[in-house]
Amino acid sequence: MSQKKRVAVLGASGYTGAETVRLLAAHPHVEIVILTAERKAGQALGAVFPHLAGLALPDLIHLDDVEWHGAELDAVICALPHVASQEVVGALFHATEHTVLDDIVGLAEPSPTGFEGQVRVLDLSADFRLTDAAAYEEWYGRPHQAPKLQTRAVYALPERNRAAIRNTALAAMPGCYPTAALLALLPLVDAGQIDVDDIAIDAKSGVSGAGRSLKEQNLYCEVGEAMHPYAVGRHRHMPEMEQELGKAAGRPVRIGFTPHLVPMNRGELETIYVRLSPGHTAEALKDTLRAAYAEEPFVTVLPGDLAPATRMVRGSNQCVLNVFEDRRAGRAIVVAAIDNLIKGAGGQAVQAMNIMFGWDETTGLTQAPLFP
Amino acid sequence: MSQKKRVAVLGASGYTGAETVRLLAAHPHVEIVILTAERKAGQALGAVFPHLAGLALPDLIHLDDVEWHGAELDAVICALPHVASQEVVGALFHATEHTVLDDIVGLAEPSPTGFEGQVRVLDLSADFRLTDAAAYEEWYGRPHQAPKLQTRAVYALPERNRAAIRNTALAAMPGCYPTAALLALLPLVDAGQIDVDDIAIDAKSGVSGAGRSLKEQNLYCEVGEAMHPYAVGRHRHMPEMEQELGKAAGRPVRIGFTPHLVPMNRGELETIYVRLSPGHTAEALKDTLRAAYAEEPFVTVLPGDLAPATRMVRGSNQCVLNVFEDRRAGRAIVVAAIDNLIKGAGGQAVQAMNIMFGWDETTGLTQAPLFP
Amino acid sequence: MSQKKRVAVLGASGYTGAETVRLLAAHPHVEIVILTAERKAGQALGAVFPHLAGLALPDLIHLDDVEWHGAELDAVICALPHVASQEVVGALFHATEHTVLDDIVGLAEPSPTGFEGQVRVLDLSADFRLTDAAAYEEWYGRPHQAPKLQTRAVYALPERNRAAIRNTALAAMPGCYPTAALLALLPLVDAGQIDVDDIAIDAKSGVSGAGRSLKEQNLYCEVGEAMHPYAVGRHRHMPEMEQELGKAAGRPVRIGFTPHLVPMNRGELETIYVRLSPGHTAEALKDTLRAAYAEEPFVTVLPGDLAPATRMVRGSNQCVLNVFEDRRAGRAIVVAAIDNLIKGAGGQAVQAMNIMFGWDETTGLTQAPLFP
Amino acid sequence: MSQKKRVAVLGASGYTGAETVRLLAAHPHVEIVILTAERKAGQALGAVFPHLAGLALPDLIHLDDVEWHGAELDAVICALPHVASQEVVGALFHATEHTVLDDIVGLAEPSPTGFEGQVRVLDLSADFRLTDAAAYEEWYGRPHQAPKLQTRAVYALPERNRAAIRNTALAAMPGCYPTAALLALLPLVDAGQIDVDDIAIDAKSGVSGAGRSLKEQNLYCEVGEAMHPYAVGRHRHMPEMEQELGKAAGRPVRIGFTPHLVPMNRGELETIYVRLSPGHTAEALKDTLRAAYAEEPFVTVLPGDLAPATRMVRGSNQCVLNVFEDRRAGRAIVVAAIDNLIKGAGGQAVQAMNIMFGWDETTGLTQAPLFP
Repeated sequence: MSQKKRVAVLGASGYTGAETVRLLAAHPHVEIVILTAERKAGQALGAVFPHLAGLALPDLIHLDDVEWHGAELDAVICALPHVASQEVVGALFHATEHTVLDDIVGLAEPSPTGFEGQVRVLDLSADFRLTDAAAYEEWYGRPHQAPKLQTRAVYALPERNRAAIRNTALAAMPGCYPTAALLALLPLVDAGQIDVDDIAIDAKSGVSGAGRSLKEQNLYCEVGEAMHPYAVGRHRHMPEMEQELGKAAGRPVRIGFTPHLVPMNRGELETIYVRLSPGHTAEALKDTLRAAYAEEPFVTVLPGDLAPATRMVRGSNQCVLNVFEDRRAGRAIVVAAIDNLIKGAGGQAVQAMNIMFGWDETTGLTQAPLFP
Repeated sequence: MSQKKRVAVLGASGYTGAETVRLLAAHPHVEIVILTAERKAGQALGAVFPHLAGLALPDLIHLDDVEWHGAELDAVICALPHVASQEVVGALFHATEHTVLDDIVGLAEPSPTGFEGQVRVLDLSADFRLTDAAAYEEWYGRPHQAPKLQTRAVYALPERNRAAIRNTALAAMPGCYPTAALLALLPLVDAGQIDVDDIAIDAKSGVSGAGRSLKEQNLYCEVGEAMHPYAVGRHRHMPEMEQELGKAAGRPVRIGFTPHLVPMNRGELETIYVRLSPGHTAEALKDTLRAAYAEEPFVTVLPGDLAPATRMVRGSNQCVLNVFEDRRAGRAIVVAAIDNLIKGAGGQAVQAMNIMFGWDETTGLTQAPLFP
Repeated sequence: MSQKKRVAVLGASGYTGAETVRLLAAHPHVEIVILTAERKAGQALGAVFPHLAGLALPDLIHLDDVEWHGAELDAVICALPHVASQEVVGALFHATEHTVLDDIVGLAEPSPTGFEGQVRVLDLSADFRLTDAAAYEEWYGRPHQAPKLQTRAVYALPERNRAAIRNTALAAMPGCYPTAALLALLPLVDAGQIDVDDIAIDAKSGVSGAGRSLKEQNLYCEVGEAMHPYAVGRHRHMPEMEQELGKAAGRPVRIGFTPHLVPMNRGELETIYVRLSPGHTAEALKDTLRAAYAEEPFVTVLPGDLAPATRMVRGSNQCVLNVFEDRRAGRAIVVAAIDNLIKGAGGQAVQAMNIMFGWDETTGLTQAPLFP
Repeated sequence: MSQKKRVAVLGASGYTGAETVRLLAAHPHVEIVILTAERKAGQALGAVFPHLAGLALPDLIHLDDVEWHGAELDAVICALPHVASQEVVGALFHATEHTVLDDIVGLAEPSPTGFEGQVRVLDLSADFRLTDAAAYEEWYGRPHQAPKLQTRAVYALPERNRAAIRNTALAAMPGCYPTAALLALLPLVDAGQIDVDDIAIDAKSGVSGAGRSLKEQNLYCEVGEAMHPYAVGRHRHMPEMEQELGKAAGRPVRIGFTPHLVPMNRGELETIYVRLSPGHTAEALKDTLRAAYAEEPFVTVLPGDLAPATRMVRGSNQCVLNVFEDRRAGRAIVVAAIDNLIKGAGGQAVQAMNIMFGWDETTGLTQAPLFP
């Protein structure tokens, strides 16, 4: 590797952005050249996140102050909130009126990736996950600003869309809840082993999933020594899961989904209740998952009846899965655990970037989980 | 109230026993006269649980050292483990060979309660919850020692079986998970609004539900900053829920049930996925619950889409419920929260005792929840 | 008790205010007639704090909308932030230009308490704790608006100033850290057993001590699975402790004090390093504390070497103390634990109110601690 | 590096042992060839610690079943409890009667290290930290079995004893509390800036410091949402700190020390109250620490008044320090934070091993801290 790839991280002052930076800083083939933030612009990232003070990093600058021209970026990881994300990414790809970024991304000829720019964009927001403009507007309450990009972005779940990720310039990184759910369910839908109309996903997440924004519900005392569900039946990760499950099923799908907030910083667990297709068993589902992930470095089907636990994946890019018999005939329970900030966000972005640039997919992601 | 009732608490050195003692000590009509423990026998309860050191209580004695004769007990609350419980309770009611306790409980004539003793027994173990001896043996791996009592005990969920509790001498106190689930589901089954063959209960509990026994999985570091399911598809609270739901449905029922351990001391939340009977809606379910609990002091159906949270009930005998639309047509999500040590154990025992002795049902249970 | 006392709680939407309301709602001689809030004005308190939804309470109103005239208040508990507090309390006592409240508090003749109003005010803010106007300005960065009241308020630590509390119209409730520290130290200073120039107080608090305000440092993820000191050497509770210790010592005192934030909702522990006066021992200190608190209902000196723990006092108005030998000759370690929201705030206010109105001091405060 | 060093980890089924294995497994120059355990012998380490299941490791064997002969070990990391440790290590060095291990460690000629074996031993227990046999017996209640080794072991705090570590065959790894305290204090003692007779160390630790043993006080519910001091004035890390501080001071030292248990898995914070030598200031202390650690990769003196926090070091080998003015004249407050399982145990052992084998001291230890 003669030369490192030059990477910008937009929105580095949130938990997701900071985690992405932490991983990239240890990546042997990457150089972080731009970090942006809004309120914290002008500070060193180590001032905002003292745990990162030991890393050699550029200071945070405001998005408006990025000198795209001459930055010679190879990749942009966008950890901005939705809406903000589509504006920037749209601009990067000429897809909107906002053309301030033209110079570096405007090319006379379309790139082989089918996009107009050479820079690879990995977007951690929800803005490019939904292919359908109407669905976006329904769930996000406003029309998308770059609808053409919506249809061209790749839903970048590596275990599912590896080839497409390799060739895209715009990777829509999956949400944390969809990551765990889709890893658990897609092979089963492919195999026709479960009824896609009868899936209930009960999800539990650490509080970091809610980000670092100042909301009363994220205060320590609101969550400590307590738990509760939120956004029951209307969480914005639902259409994303339904879209991907629908693609696999070949027809529209609706799921039940209930996320819960748990008094822990990171970690995400999903307990998924499925109905078996006739003739199938929990053990058959497990065989399918084992086969699907036999060669995958980041997905493990646990042995025996060992239950997935968030402590098995904390601080790592791993996903652990298992399947259990439901006491009710004809049903099974699939359980998945990930670290929401890594496999559910920054780690998966690094994994996708590894694919894009042809590096070993585990580069920079070999950290074993941290327990206790 | 001219005279206080004399009460014994057996197994006072566990979390459930201690919580029961804490509540009884503040009860205006009760005098605690006997407390038993095994390893901690000989100590003051305040030495075992310093938070209770301020209470005037008898010292812990070994069960074998209880002088039943002359104790003039009005009630016994049994917080022993299962098996141990059936031996003691069986003896108390002449139902076994173990007749050491005859003197106080043996009466020439059957009592009006249909039992041979006058003392009221409230058993917090699982030993008298299952009516069926075969089911007990299947789930607990050994034959019951007092099978006759199994069929005569009352399943003492106050909101359900108030009249029977009033007249029984043996109240089998429901498990913590069944308490929340049955309060959420029984009125809906009664009303025929849900399909009893399609119920999945996803339960989350604080660690105190596992008791104070020395097991690796209960160590702080195994649970802190982490969560996981356990006993998936085979938890012993399942047959108990199925029995009671089956009674309501008029036929055998099988449910899906997955308990999870959450890093908190107390609190229990259940998220229940149900299929609506044709023509019914989530709102109709909510109406049914509101009607069922309109007069109940300890069950509240929350307004609007306010989600039940364990912080709403911590330290109190309350249960909070709500019903949500599932995004899938024809389904709904019912959510319940309780404090597992109070409404799920000691508080419910006090509530049942209040019923037995004709006291106001809220006596000693009016403490508002503690938050944060 | 023929008639309940009519009480207002100002600032009921914070943790301290809510906890005070929770306690007052269970108090047999009190009726809550006014609750105020700023941003949450117009809501029911049960909407802001669902755990209190079961209580019969007046809705929250804005402070400006209180109709003082005709409210016939017996007591006002002020849980407002400092500065806001001095304005309201000053107005209540004619001590400022802000005379909107004149009607109810203006009396032709001074009351026997030496104040101009009959209403009893218990202020939980820091505004009336410091007697000295210059000290107030130094630590709070602005001149006090009601300096005359500063000198007339009683520092309402019940175990210390019981008689003065009985007769005052303005009780400055001690801060949470000072409460624990002063209970541990004042008898030792009185007895001349420790060197007041050599006291280091290492304090640890649950996050509720920081209130419900939206600050990044109070977010769950900033505190969860972590701990740190804050405001080292410059916390505003320092001058308050120094003032009271100085009163006891008869000369100015300076202390070392370091507060820490601990990942728990409530609870406060102080580990205090003291130098013994010549000829004294740790055991002698313990004897002094035992004697000082022998008749106190809310302060307990623990037996043997049992270490004070926050779990011993959670949810109660108790303070537990113990004294240990330091390995260094001539030194000792005094440890105190309280629940910061109860003995450190709302509970102590209720205790002081009980004294003011001549009720049994434990009225409404008999709840045993909640563990686990 | 042509060949990896062959390493055994004894006692791999505890938290410390497992953390050491996790770090070694990612070390480029190390091959783990032996792992021992007692109760868990016969299992894969990944079965005991599922978070490590992805690592290629030998199975756990019983210590008695280790075939030392032929193992060709370069290093042994001993994570056994004290007493057990001295027996094994003593045997490894012919220092006891227990000669079962002779074959591999017995050499005709003393090694250049002054020991009789070539294998490097890094002992994480307390057994070789105290040089003085009488002190050991006093604090551990029994005579040491290998007193000669006591005097020859190196107290392996790398920042202090780098040269000695390089040449020793027996590294006594410092305890977690002493590591933080000594890093904070030794340069100040060297510089004569503080009074060694007036040091009070208030320490707070996550629960993993207590290990994975089944004790009631380590249960989740005993610690969750709570905190307390323990072993006040008599913790076994005291003589170790006193010994090292005494070495620096040139005379015997006695300190005050109080450890506390905090509801978190890992992390350790020490708040240290010191008296300044005449003419010195807090800022001068900070200058001394900055100079002492200017070139150290794992110790950072924080800028300004930024307070050390455990979240800054979680999952890393870092120690962060800062010095604050005490409000009392002539005093200062030094604060240190480490991850007790890494810089306080396994990470420091790897650091010492890096020194022994002449590798870059940060090899295998470059992981940035994990937050949130």
